Amino acid sequence: MVRINDNYLKLRGSYLFSTIAKKVNTFVKENPDKEIIRLGIGDVTRPLTPSITDALHKTVDEMGKAETFRGYAPDLGYEFLRNAVSENDYKARGCDIAPDEIFISDGAKCDSGNIQEIFSVDNSIAVCDPVYPVYVDSNVMAGRGGEYNEITEGYSDIIYMPCVIENNFAPQLPAKVPDIIYLCFPNNPTGAVISKDELQKWVDYANENGSVIIFDAAYEAYIRTEGVPHSIYECKGARTCAIELHSFSKNAGFTGVRLGYTVIPKDLERGGVSLHRLWARRHSTKYNGAPYIVQRAGEAVYSKKGKKEIKGLVDYYMNNASYILDGLRGAGYTVSGGVDAPYIWLKTPEGMSSWEFFDHLLINANVVGTPGSGFGAHGEGYFRLTAFGSHENTKRAVDRIKAL
Amino acid sequence: MVRINDNYLKLRGSYLFSTIAKKVNTFVKENPDKEIIRLGIGDVTRPLTPSITDALHKTVDEMGKAETFRGYAPDLGYEFLRNAVSENDYKARGCDIAPDEIFISDGAKCDSGNIQEIFSVDNSIAVCDPVYPVYVDSNVMAGRGGEYNEITEGYSDIIYMPCVIENNFAPQLPAKVPDIIYLCFPNNPTGAVISKDELQKWVDYANENGSVIIFDAAYEAYIRTEGVPHSIYECKGARTCAIELHSFSKNAGFTGVRLGYTVIPKDLERGGVSLHRLWARRHSTKYNGAPYIVQRAGEAVYSKKGKKEIKGLVDYYMNNASYILDGLRGAGYTVSGGVDAPYIWLKTPEGMSSWEFFDHLLINANVVGTPGSGFGAHGEGYFRLTAFGSHENTKRAVDRIKAL
Repeated sequence: MVRINDNYLKLRGSYLFSTIAKKVNTFVKENPDKEIIRLGIGDVTRPLTPSITDALHKTVDEMGKAETFRGYAPDLGYEFLRNAVSENDYKARGCDIAPDEIFISDGAKCDSGNIQEIFSVDNSIAVCDPVYPVYVDSNVMAGRGGEYNEITEGYSDIIYMPCVIENNFAPQLPAKVPDIIYLCFPNNPTGAVISKDELQKWVDYANENGSVIIFDAAYEAYIRTEGVPHSIYECKGARTCAIELHSFSKNAGFTGVRLGYTVIPKDLERGGVSLHRLWARRHSTKYNGAPYIVQRAGEAVYSKKGKKEIKGLVDYYMNNASYILDGLRGAGYTVSGGVDAPYIWLKTPEGMSSWEFFDHLLINANVVGTPGSGFGAHGEGYFRLTAFGSHENTKRAVDRIKAL
Repeated sequence: MVRINDNYLKLRGSYLFSTIAKKVNTFVKENPDKEIIRLGIGDVTRPLTPSITDALHKTVDEMGKAETFRGYAPDLGYEFLRNAVSENDYKARGCDIAPDEIFISDGAKCDSGNIQEIFSVDNSIAVCDPVYPVYVDSNVMAGRGGEYNEITEGYSDIIYMPCVIENNFAPQLPAKVPDIIYLCFPNNPTGAVISKDELQKWVDYANENGSVIIFDAAYEAYIRTEGVPHSIYECKGARTCAIELHSFSKNAGFTGVRLGYTVIPKDLERGGVSLHRLWARRHSTKYNGAPYIVQRAGEAVYSKKGKKEIKGLVDYYMNNASYILDGLRGAGYTVSGGVDAPYIWLKTPEGMSSWEFFDHLLINANVVGTPGSGFGAHGEGYFRLTAFGSHENTKRAVDRIKAL
């Protein structure tokens, strides 16, 4: 008789964004006349730029001709894309990352969910609280969570690092050393960043203790403040303790196109085993490459014209961020984030829980945001808005919230 | 200190096709004047058909406009594609599979590697021998393999079901009941098929014993013989014991486009838990959907024009299969497969191992095939050729082999 993976039964409710989608769908069905503005999920709204669509059209034509058709992609991704990533995202920033240390994938969500597989089930993990749910849920599914505690609203075996207004949303080095540390800066959901000096402390801590940092850099394109690191490899010693995740979703608008990459330096070993080799084996066994046409679209992101267009997209969303920040501040809300990140993190009004504020906004302003408590116990009393809407909708949403 | 997943160290060598690629690359470097014909990996060579490229162009344009841009896809896949699959691959064949029992993914390789995650680590698994390596390797990585035994050339905890010339390459019901049974028909690598009556025995066996069958139907488009089932759901009772995997790679030539789907009927429960629900949770937590443009390309496969084109692709490759079958038989080889499958399975000449024959063909005919032993101990002494080359190359490869 087959037995199921019991760890799945320890998961709390369903995935946060599925829950939100269901709530919104129900509201829409019951209120067909209301016009909903969605600033909840981190999904972009601007169309793909001309460089991207040109690259896609061109390669679709290639795929339609026998002479230029391409089947299975190379395991690690096409060299043209790995070269472009190495040059632009690393060497141009003084980071020593070679093309064959880059694994192309169909997105950072898959990679951030799958990366834990190469580690033993008995490792301890540490996450920021609040946190992007995938880090926690993928580890609970694998058996690293322990039991869920209703009182602390957390899993017994996970080390939570509170990120709250009092510590400026920056986690402290944990007293009990974790084996695996998930960090995401610019942060989802708080929009906080940390300086290069602060990040260096984490790298040193990991190297001293033999821990591995999984650094999610999905939002690095939104950094505007000098001295905020775009990559963990800007820190000394990161090659021996850090794995970095990247996405094309938020800079180039690829949420519906699907492309990302993971960096594992060849120097990164534990117990004498190369983590690069383990991930390469996972990739070649359980994955079959991102579509050729999508990898070419990724390459176009790094062209001169592509870069200019992508900057335009990021600027567009960051204008929204400023509008939300200023508007909510003016309306008396306590807000943070939104300067080096497309997320605005606000304190809910006195006495209102995150989900109460979610319902309040949905019902009274017809605006969808994300309850902070959905990201962890220390997200309770906070709320996330994203800058990924259109200008018009963002403006209208802010005006509606101000009018409440 | 981080500990790695030791199960990875139990894996044998590197993934079969990576090994072949390395061997061929070395040969090419050392013999730049030789023209290699590749009939090894199951990768298609025909270009995408006009219906597919039209759908891609059209949706790339949609993605380039704000009004029609699409971000994250729905968790299970777009309804338009799930509806098309349900209608064409199931209802048209009398199988009762609803659209919401279909999970769209980026290909059957990922799904066949990931599906084991929803089961407990202590389940026993059974595979055909020879077998597509992903079923075995993904389970070894998860800890279900036990130890590798150099003498039997297999893992201690895996139940191998020999498929050899003596049993017409059809596995027998195992005496010791496995919890999870992987079946693939038309078979990769042997090209064998089984009748609906034979498959019904497996379904009955699984239902009697509480086992789950993971049925890989990646090659169903190649079936030509009446009475050979295209789906396991043609069998009575399959809804309570079977998961089915499908690919767009081999029928529509999507190896470089990436699209597939997995069916988990809602009736399929073990220990009172719905496997559909577990897979839905995995999908929403660790996966972010196939690209919108690729899902539209998948929809085009089911259009009237698309179906005709796809039939043309399959016919093209099956002409190759006939040519290989006839040619090798005429040259005195013992061959099977190639009638309802794009794979030809041949016995190596007396006294030659699979890898010896691989080297022999590579060096003397400059033809790349796949050593049967790479698929398992009972593949030793066999060799796989695929029908996925061009007509011209296939003809030349067969002529070269005949001339040896």
